[in-house]
Amino acid sequence: MNLELADKHRETLQKAVQALHQRTFFAHYPENPSPEVYGETADKEGREKYKSTLNNKFTELLQEGEQAWVGQEESPYEQQPLGIKYPYFEPEALVSRAEEAFHQWRKVKPLDRAALLVEALENMRNRFFEIAYATMHTTGQAYMMSFQASGPHAADRALEAVAAGYEEQTRFPESAEWEKPMGKYNLKLNKTWKAVPKGVALAIGCSTFPTWNTVPGMFASLVTGNPVIVKPHPKAVLPIAIVVAEVQKVLQQNGLNPNICQLAVDADDRLITKELAEHRKVKIIDYTGSSEFGNYIESLPGKVTFTEKTGVNSIILDSVEDLDKVVQNLAFSISLYSGQMCTAPQNFFVPESGVKVAGETVPYEQVVEKITGAVTALVNNPKAGPHILGAIQNPATAERVKSAATVKGREVLSSCDFENPMFSNARTCTPVIYEVDATEKESYSRELFGPVALIIKTQDTDQSIEIASEMASKYGAISCGAYTTDAVVKEKIMDEMSLAGTPVSFNLTGGIFVNQNASFSDFHVTGGNPAGNASFTNPEFVIKRFTWVGFREPVAG
Amino acid sequence: MNLELADKHRETLQKAVQALHQRTFFAHYPENPSPEVYGETADKEGREKYKSTLNNKFTELLQEGEQAWVGQEESPYEQQPLGIKYPYFEPEALVSRAEEAFHQWRKVKPLDRAALLVEALENMRNRFFEIAYATMHTTGQAYMMSFQASGPHAADRALEAVAAGYEEQTRFPESAEWEKPMGKYNLKLNKTWKAVPKGVALAIGCSTFPTWNTVPGMFASLVTGNPVIVKPHPKAVLPIAIVVAEVQKVLQQNGLNPNICQLAVDADDRLITKELAEHRKVKIIDYTGSSEFGNYIESLPGKVTFTEKTGVNSIILDSVEDLDKVVQNLAFSISLYSGQMCTAPQNFFVPESGVKVAGETVPYEQVVEKITGAVTALVNNPKAGPHILGAIQNPATAERVKSAATVKGREVLSSCDFENPMFSNARTCTPVIYEVDATEKESYSRELFGPVALIIKTQDTDQSIEIASEMASKYGAISCGAYTTDAVVKEKIMDEMSLAGTPVSFNLTGGIFVNQNASFSDFHVTGGNPAGNASFTNPEFVIKRFTWVGFREPVAG
Repeated sequence: MNLELADKHRETLQKAVQALHQRTFFAHYPENPSPEVYGETADKEGREKYKSTLNNKFTELLQEGEQAWVGQEESPYEQQPLGIKYPYFEPEALVSRAEEAFHQWRKVKPLDRAALLVEALENMRNRFFEIAYATMHTTGQAYMMSFQASGPHAADRALEAVAAGYEEQTRFPESAEWEKPMGKYNLKLNKTWKAVPKGVALAIGCSTFPTWNTVPGMFASLVTGNPVIVKPHPKAVLPIAIVVAEVQKVLQQNGLNPNICQLAVDADDRLITKELAEHRKVKIIDYTGSSEFGNYIESLPGKVTFTEKTGVNSIILDSVEDLDKVVQNLAFSISLYSGQMCTAPQNFFVPESGVKVAGETVPYEQVVEKITGAVTALVNNPKAGPHILGAIQNPATAERVKSAATVKGREVLSSCDFENPMFSNARTCTPVIYEVDATEKESYSRELFGPVALIIKTQDTDQSIEIASEMASKYGAISCGAYTTDAVVKEKIMDEMSLAGTPVSFNLTGGIFVNQNASFSDFHVTGGNPAGNASFTNPEFVIKRFTWVGFREPVAG
Repeated sequence: MNLELADKHRETLQKAVQALHQRTFFAHYPENPSPEVYGETADKEGREKYKSTLNNKFTELLQEGEQAWVGQEESPYEQQPLGIKYPYFEPEALVSRAEEAFHQWRKVKPLDRAALLVEALENMRNRFFEIAYATMHTTGQAYMMSFQASGPHAADRALEAVAAGYEEQTRFPESAEWEKPMGKYNLKLNKTWKAVPKGVALAIGCSTFPTWNTVPGMFASLVTGNPVIVKPHPKAVLPIAIVVAEVQKVLQQNGLNPNICQLAVDADDRLITKELAEHRKVKIIDYTGSSEFGNYIESLPGKVTFTEKTGVNSIILDSVEDLDKVVQNLAFSISLYSGQMCTAPQNFFVPESGVKVAGETVPYEQVVEKITGAVTALVNNPKAGPHILGAIQNPATAERVKSAATVKGREVLSSCDFENPMFSNARTCTPVIYEVDATEKESYSRELFGPVALIIKTQDTDQSIEIASEMASKYGAISCGAYTTDAVVKEKIMDEMSLAGTPVSFNLTGGIFVNQNASFSDFHVTGGNPAGNASFTNPEFVIKRFTWVGFREPVAG
């Protein structure tokens, strides 16, 4: 293989592996889309490149012999089709090409595979702005989030998976001489070991985070020697199509079969995910999306599966130093990308006796008012609101949010449309907030996707913790925010939520939010509750993709 | 916790972790049962202790409130009941006690848990001879194997699991300060992480290796903070009962609940394994035994499972230097513990054109004669045969071996009884060998447990490799032996068998056998084919037993 590439990226890989173990702040790709970092013309060029793709065929892929040109994307900001057409291939063709490519890819050394993938990420970096516009107009994310989540943050999550996979495959020696004293003589064996990849992998994307949620599994499968078929959500193809194209180019430039990484787009009249997932040659599946489909994926026999499904995220309010700062922070978390994040908080537990604020008790009703007031102020601020809320990806989400009848409870803040200053036709809605009693479990024991928050009145913080933990254990949770100034309460929350496999952010105010999750430091999804069995990126996320096989032979002589 | 114990065993743990990564020869417990190593009186005392247990209640366990005294063991050497009675507990009582103990055990630090378990293994060491006699008279293993497999080798496998679990839980920092530059200021978070155990574990033992196959899962669950219920095979309880008792004593001596590790013996009239396995509180299951039951265990929803099931192990004969040495080695492998090993070879692939021996071709028929001749010579040697063959654990195995009708093929060596010099009533039979054509797949595509070997005539070595690989991929395999002096053939075997997830031993002659599997060096079962999803001890074997959960909070300031 190309040793130059290994040399070129060795330091990046080493730093990434080190970062995984230090878990202090680390980012290989800067999250700031400023001209000083990415160049004066990068944004403009990216926007133009994105526009030139519209109403055209996406011809960058190196996959040949398409059976049709297909595409169903539409912009939540413009509410009209993007008109981009992608090549369509039958599942059987995709799998048989992946299987053929497997026997080339598995023989490439882990270091070389890792270096090739880092090279592809470096090339992806040159397209962060184009990917940002593609993300805006498929997911409805605002510009800044589109850039950060689909560009640098996704690339860092991919690098994290590459680093973890590289480390795990090189953690045991390739060979050793085994010498056992037998008394009168020594038994000597030469031993070697191989990390043998499992086979064809499938990475199934979602509509809201088309690169961030797809690249970890995609790159984890690739670095461990498995060819991957990337199956995006039919409404969010372009961002990940660009990434797949960049991987294919690096493969081809290095004399490898580009079918090691293929894009699989649904036909306009037929969804192909199940056919791919059930194919006997498909051994590994990564999936992000609904619990219903995720449970089906997990139930498929003979597959290694990694899922990120839905959950019910909680905020526990017990005691705070400064309630205004707290509700401002929470208002941002509720509003960010209109709640269309797997880490967005939904259930806000407030004791009926109120919240202790710097020693004084603020009554329950005032806490509710403070929360709704903070959300109202945020969404009504024309300089902040639209840039935080973005647009609603799926029309069904907007309809559900606006039809008040979905939750049994008292609506304390209504949802309404708002004006996006750049896109007059954007699909938008502000958050709706309900007040629910703790006894009304059926109201809050499921994910209400989108900008929907429930304030749940509990007897006391003990009950808040008990219910938050029960929700996470039974229905899954990916995040939890807790506010307490009491060390005993804090310890109890940590203990109960750890048993529910849910990470907890304590006392967040200012510029850090419960929704955020940092590569190389925060494990994303723990695998410890029904919200998913994957975790970005713990060792389990990569080692289940290959098998250790040993060989031994007596030393000649 | 007891810091002294951590200090006492820190070096042992460190050496064991190092050994896992060097994979050169390492043994903490000497395998030689000589008086110089274990003391002049150890054997005699062990035998006497064993005898004193017969026809008595086993009262060492610290579990209280038994509902009955039960026991169904009988000696394959004496073909009469051992008469040992164990306390019986209802599954619900076992699980609820484990659940209670969980909340104490999970709070013990990984290093302290590991030190407590090493202390228990050191105490087990003092009982290796007693365990050896208990193993002989439950499994039918010969004395030397009983000592080594159930004593030092099992203890080393347990230590390996403890070391791997300790390493994985301490591989990421307990805390870190995360500081992200935001331009005008830095965001600072204190972060902490916990390795959270999954919950109640169940370790289900088999009848032939009651400690060796049980302790890896048992100790892996314990070191990662999960209370374990050890459910032995009803016919092989005593060896592991002694180990459980030693763990309980160490727990109690250190102020911990002995129910962290419980023994669960079947009632005389009722098997309790399924009830335990299906209990909603049981989160982790380790299982060794039949594929049928193993597949059931793997299918249970919501459980983390580790299985070692049955497989079809192959020997590929292509070319050798010295055929006599090869067939002697193979005769030993066929005969060792009468083929009642998961690593015993069953299918011997020989090309119809014969085997190349130091450049000359030895015809197929002569190869068959050499193999049967070597087995006959071994089993007829009164100084070797009985001590290698041991006795047959299960009467059904002996019946099946003796009733020729089980295999469609030509019987080239018949099975017969033989005299054990120490036990005139031993249940014995010598190996039976059939000759089968490669076209008769149904004859050789299943495990024929016990001393049964099939010589399969193939067109050539390519076909031998193809079928061996197909058998492993479809029906599972735990070992493969291959004999070739041709580098190209060797490479092909490595490649094909690696895809079938099967380790290969090449060109073994002399004192090392395909059945043997060394702690700290050979991964036992790869998890890459239907013979099982567990591997002793790769990182996957321990990390699936706990969840990484993170906590974060802004740095006060």
